[in-house]
This record gives sequence, C-alpha cells and structure tokens, in this order.
Amino acid sequence: MKRTTADLLAEIRKTAPLIHNITNLVVMNATANILLAVGASPVMAHSRHEVEEMASLAGALVVNIGTLSDPWVEAMLLAARAANRTECPVILDPVGAGATAYRSRSVRNLIDDASVSVIRGNASEVLSLVDAGVTTKGVDSSLTLSDAAVDAARGIASHYGCVVAISGERDLITDGDRVLRVANGVPLMTRVTGLGCGLSAVVGAFCAVAGADRLDAVAAAFGFYGLCGELALKVSDRPGSFYIAFIDALYAAGQAEIDVWLKVDESG
Amino acid sequence: MKRTTADLLAEIRKTAPLIHNITNLVVMNATANILLAVGASPVMAHSRHEVEEMASLAGALVVNIGTLSDPWVEAMLLAARAANRTECPVILDPVGAGATAYRSRSVRNLIDDASVSVIRGNASEVLSLVDAGVTTKGVDSSLTLSDAAVDAARGIASHYGCVVAISGERDLITDGDRVLRVANGVPLMTRVTGLGCGLSAVVGAFCAVAGADRLDAVAAAFGFYGLCGELALKVSDRPGSFYIAFIDALYAAGQAEIDVWLKVDESG
Amino acid sequence: MKRTTADLLAEIRKTAPLIHNITNLVVMNATANILLAVGASPVMAHSRHEVEEMASLAGALVVNIGTLSDPWVEAMLLAARAANRTECPVILDPVGAGATAYRSRSVRNLIDDASVSVIRGNASEVLSLVDAGVTTKGVDSSLTLSDAAVDAARGIASHYGCVVAISGERDLITDGDRVLRVANGVPLMTRVTGLGCGLSAVVGAFCAVAGADRLDAVAAAFGFYGLCGELALKVSDRPGSFYIAFIDALYAAGQAEIDVWLKVDESG
Repeated sequence: MKRTTADLLAEIRKTAPLIHNITNLVVMNATANILLAVGASPVMAHSRHEVEEMASLAGALVVNIGTLSDPWVEAMLLAARAANRTECPVILDPVGAGATAYRSRSVRNLIDDASVSVIRGNASEVLSLVDAGVTTKGVDSSLTLSDAAVDAARGIASHYGCVVAISGERDLITDGDRVLRVANGVPLMTRVTGLGCGLSAVVGAFCAVAGADRLDAVAAAFGFYGLCGELALKVSDRPGSFYIAFIDALYAAGQAEIDVWLKVDESG
Repeated sequence: MKRTTADLLAEIRKTAPLIHNITNLVVMNATANILLAVGASPVMAHSRHEVEEMASLAGALVVNIGTLSDPWVEAMLLAARAANRTECPVILDPVGAGATAYRSRSVRNLIDDASVSVIRGNASEVLSLVDAGVTTKGVDSSLTLSDAAVDAARGIASHYGCVVAISGERDLITDGDRVLRVANGVPLMTRVTGLGCGLSAVVGAFCAVAGADRLDAVAAAFGFYGLCGELALKVSDRPGSFYIAFIDALYAAGQAEIDVWLKVDESG
Repeated sequence: MKRTTADLLAEIRKTAPLIHNITNLVVMNATANILLAVGASPVMAHSRHEVEEMASLAGALVVNIGTLSDPWVEAMLLAARAANRTECPVILDPVGAGATAYRSRSVRNLIDDASVSVIRGNASEVLSLVDAGVTTKGVDSSLTLSDAAVDAARGIASHYGCVVAISGERDLITDGDRVLRVANGVPLMTRVTGLGCGLSAVVGAFCAVAGADRLDAVAAAFGFYGLCGELALKVSDRPGSFYIAFIDALYAAGQAEIDVWLKVDESG
C-alpha cells in the first residue's frame, strides 16, 4: 500500500484532477483548501443549470449532504447521473444521515437513483442507510465500529456495488469482499469542522487518478490523510493551529512520510 | 461569576450539547470551529423539511440573520417555534438589523412570532429593533453604549421577556432588571469576521447547560469568550494569527484562566 | 504608483468603506477577513429584497459568480443596476466563466444589462467573455497572457468602457488605452482558495476611495495585494500557514513595504 499511496499522490500532483464538489455550506472553504493542498483542482457548482456539464468535465464528483435543501438535492441527483454516464467516480458523504428523516430519505433516494462509487461517513451515518433504527447525534456518530457494524458495512457495499468507508478509531474500508483497516489519524481531527468532509473530497482526488481499483485508492486516501493529521499533531495539540499544520502537511508530505507512517492492513 | 463560568464550561466539555445553528454563509465555518473548540457539538441545518426536527433535538438554537433570504426566514421561524415547544433556548443574532428594511422587518417578525431567550448584537443592531430611526453601517455598529442605550436595552429585555446582550467596549447584559457588564475582550476581535456571530453561538452552548439562570450564563459566555481574546492577543496582534490563537485559547483555557482574567461586574 | 498606492491604502484604513459583496459560497469567509485586514468594512447580502438598498449604501459592489444559482443571478443584476444609479463602482469577478455555458451566459447578460467598472479574473475567464472558443478548467485558467490576450483584454475594456484586470505571472491591467503590468505576487497564492476572489474585493476597496482614476486604483490594489503575498512567503512556503501570514501582512503592511516592494510598470 505504501507504493500505491505514494504513486497515486504523485499522480494527483502531476495531473491536478478537477474535483466537482456539491457540498455543505460549512466546509466549502476547507474542502477547497484541502484539495488544493493535496494537489487537485477543486470546483464547487450546485445550480441545476450547470451541474451536469461540470460533473461531465470532472475527474470525480463529491456529494455531501451536510446542509441540504430541495434545489441541492435535485442538483446532486442530476450531477450523479451525469457522472455515471461518463464513468466519473461518485463519492457520497452522508453527513448527518440518521439525524433527521429528511437527510436519511434524501440520501437513500440518491443511492437508489444513481450509482455511487464510494460512501464515506461515520458509523451511524453509514449504518442508518440500511437500518432506520440507527440515529445520529447531529453530525456525530452514535456508534463504534463493532463486529456487527463491519458486517453491516460489507452488506451495504455488496448491495450497492460500491466501496464503503467508515471513519473511526481504526477506519474500515470494504468493497463487500475485502476489508482494509487504517490506523492513521488522531482524535483532534474531530475537533476541527470539515475534516471528515475534506477526507471525502480527498477520496475523490485519489479515485480520480486510480482507475478501477477503488478499494486501494480509498484506503490510500485515508492513510495519507490520517498520517498528515499525525504530522500536524507534532506541531500543535490545539485545534486552530493544528488545522493550519494539517493543511501544510497535506501540501508537503510525500513518499518519505508515507514510508514511515502509513498504517493500512488487510483484515478478516 | 468565576465559579459559575468555570462550572458551565466544564459542563459543556463533559456533555457536548448539540447546538443547532441557522446562521449566515460567511461565518458557518468559524462558528462550527468555535463551538467545537469550546466543547459543544455544532450542527447546521436550514431546510424547512428538517429544522423543526433538528431544533427539537438540540440543546440550543442559534438564529443569525447575516445573509437572509426568504427560505431561510421561513426556516428560522419554524425552528424557533419548534424550540419553544421543547423549551430549548433560542439565541438571536440580528446581524445588520438597521442596515436594510428587509433585515429589520425579518427580525421583528421573528421576535413577534416566536419566543426568543437571548438577543445578542452590537448596539445599533439591537436598538434598531425598537427604534426605526437607528441605522447600522452594514454590519458595524453606528452607536456606542450610552446611558440611553442601556435604558433601551432594559426596555427590550422587559418587553420580550429575554436577555439582551450588547457587545461593546464594556459589554452590556440585562434581563430588564439586573445589568451585568463584561470588560473582557480586545478590539482586534472586530477585525476578524464572525467573532461576534461566534459569541452568539457560544452563548447558545452556555445556555444549553445552564438551566433557568440565563442572565449569568450569558455573562459567563461573554466573559470567557472575551478573555480568550485577551489570551490570543498575547500570541499575536495581527488578525490572521490572532484568530488561530483565539481558537486555540477557546480549546485550552479553563478554570485557571477564568480565575485570573474574568471581569464581570453587576452595575446599576 | 508608490505614492498613489500608499495614499489609497491609508484612505481605506481611515474611512473603512462599506464593500457590498455578492460572492460565492466558498470564499465568503476569506473575502470578509481579507477586507477587514485591509481596513474596509465588508457586508454580504444576496436577497433580492435588500441588495438594491445595500448596494446604494456601499462604497463598492463586488459581484462574483463562483457558485451561481438563479436567485443569485437575479440579485447580482438588481444590485449592479442600483450601484449604477449611485455611481458606486461595480467589480465583476467571472469565476469559472468558460467552464460551463451557464456561467458564461450569466456573466455576459450581466455585463450587457448593467455597467461594470472593473472585470478581474484569470486569462481564460476574461477572454471567454468575448470568445466562445475559450474554455476554462473549472476555475483554473487554460491560457497565459500572450500578446493576443493583451489585445483581447484591451478590446474588452474599450467595448465595455471598463478596466480589465487579468491575474497571471505578470498581471495585466488596462482601460483599453493604457496598459499597466504588475510583477508582485507569488505562485503559492494560487494554492489557497479565494485569494483571487479576495483580490477582486480589495480592488473594490481601492476603487471605493479612488474617485475617477480607476486604472491606477486597480493597479495599486494588485500591487499591494501581491506584495503582501511576497511578505507572507517569507514567513512560510506552505499554504496553511502562508494564508495566515498573508492576512497578517494585509493588516500590517503600509508605506514602508510599498516603497520597497511595489512593482507596477506602464508598458506598450
């Protein structure tokens, strides 16, 4: 995985893939800066008049439901279908699914009506997609990654033919068959808004340059992103300056840091 | 007040109350990071399809009119009424009231049609709620906290049965009866966008854990927030790095800093 | 130009002109912080119920199409016409023009139906306004500033009676007659989101205090903004901490830095 991760990162920096984000109002700025730091070219567009055209030009489409309203729900579906037509990977971040009926319903409609390549969220957001009994506290997970959660994630991946990636103490990434676990990352990342959403965008960048092997690409994105969190924590253990150091690390880290810090394992 | 402030802060950090923000597009990211740094759990949601459900789950609702449009005005009213039904405190930040007729009208409709727990703004924003002759320059106050302003603030608090909190050189906090003054804070805080709005959100966090004594909770929020500004100024006197140091201070400051720096007094 | 630049900057800091921004969702926070750092008073408002009133109070209106939707397109036109009535300068940033038909069409309608004082963008965004064959990659330029591009920029300025300002390795600023080139700025500025948009806002601040000579005011804004980038690069060559240092420089730099670093020349 170290070689794969470094190669994909180098390819992002060489080709600057266009990543089309339809994301929430809280994290747009951070998402754009995170993608720029990694080496990708972010664009945000949400009007139904342009999302199909923009998605068709993109290397990946990232859809994030963090601050939904009806025009955005419509745009997300239009964009995802357009991305499907050009085989552009679609990353879905179901922020707050399980917190309100509207979020849960909107995201279920999306994954039923368009093909999604990767679903990335926390445990309760992802598991609420198939279990109406799972609730989310705002945008914070109410679950940990138990064995039952791993089985549920594999089931979702198999059912929708996508990669399911769940952030947690040890991240879980599965295509329904293989299961990868990523041990990078630090808890302080949850005290800065948008770092989960930013990871979904970086998953988009890695998928944009990865070709068919999306499971490894998603794990590479998680591992690289998490190790940049570890590098940032060496600079500061307070969230304001930690965030700045994290952006700096995304920009500066490369092969050498990946060789030392990446912790991705195949399990079960 | 030092004990109250430290206790409320500790309770926020222990329970991470969910704070539902319907706020403006400029400050969403900063507001979320400020709440996370203090220890609360922020969520943003503005669709009429989910604001009632989200507000009913929240420990406080923070409504901020900084970038209004009709769907948001509708959502704010729906959310505030839902919050009223569960006795969830509602914080109103009337950003730019007095600058345009639309803002003044929207905020007056809101306080007439729903019950608001705290109104926090600058002097001209707050006083324009009851005096159509008061104008605001964009989002900057055109008034200082004169004796006449103090009387007007007390009148607003009594009329609406809420706490009125006005930021200024010495902040004014009143429930119509008691008047507290807070001498914490530094002028550089006005040179970073969203720090006033962020204070309204932190007032929400303090009210979420405070129970019935909202006057003291609001003063505690003002005092803690302002002293974090003073701590940040020791790190940097320039607004970019000052903001980062301020977020760091909100995360790291506690009992010890409160004991030394808090400056809340009861007056008149 | 050094004297002009320092004088205009001092005037901004003395009078804090109100800058009304109708800008994109990604950069609102950065735009507000950039304007505050320079010394201006930013306000964001996009509802059709208030944009005319707000624009009529402003020292400059800045319109940026980075995340368009129909209500915003309508508001931009209303605001621009209101600004025209009070002779308030209108700055247009055609973000992503040339990337989708919707953006190109919207911005052409705007410049046909209202009078614009300054158009600021990258080469392909600006040239796409008059050449449907020019395409933009998301929000990144696909062109460099060739001699042909200079001629096209002069043509646009003459046709619309405005200043055209194109960011590039050496920025180009022309009123159709005179051509100024600015050699300030560093490439790392393109790796932080919103710094181009922020420059358009700062152009607004300089025009707000400049009176009739807008060509020099725009060049002064470009030169000052770019040299603050150079000062920031001395602090950090990584984008997270570079952005913070840049905000600090916008706040702290003045006559002394302008005297040493400003590089504005008249050419051709």
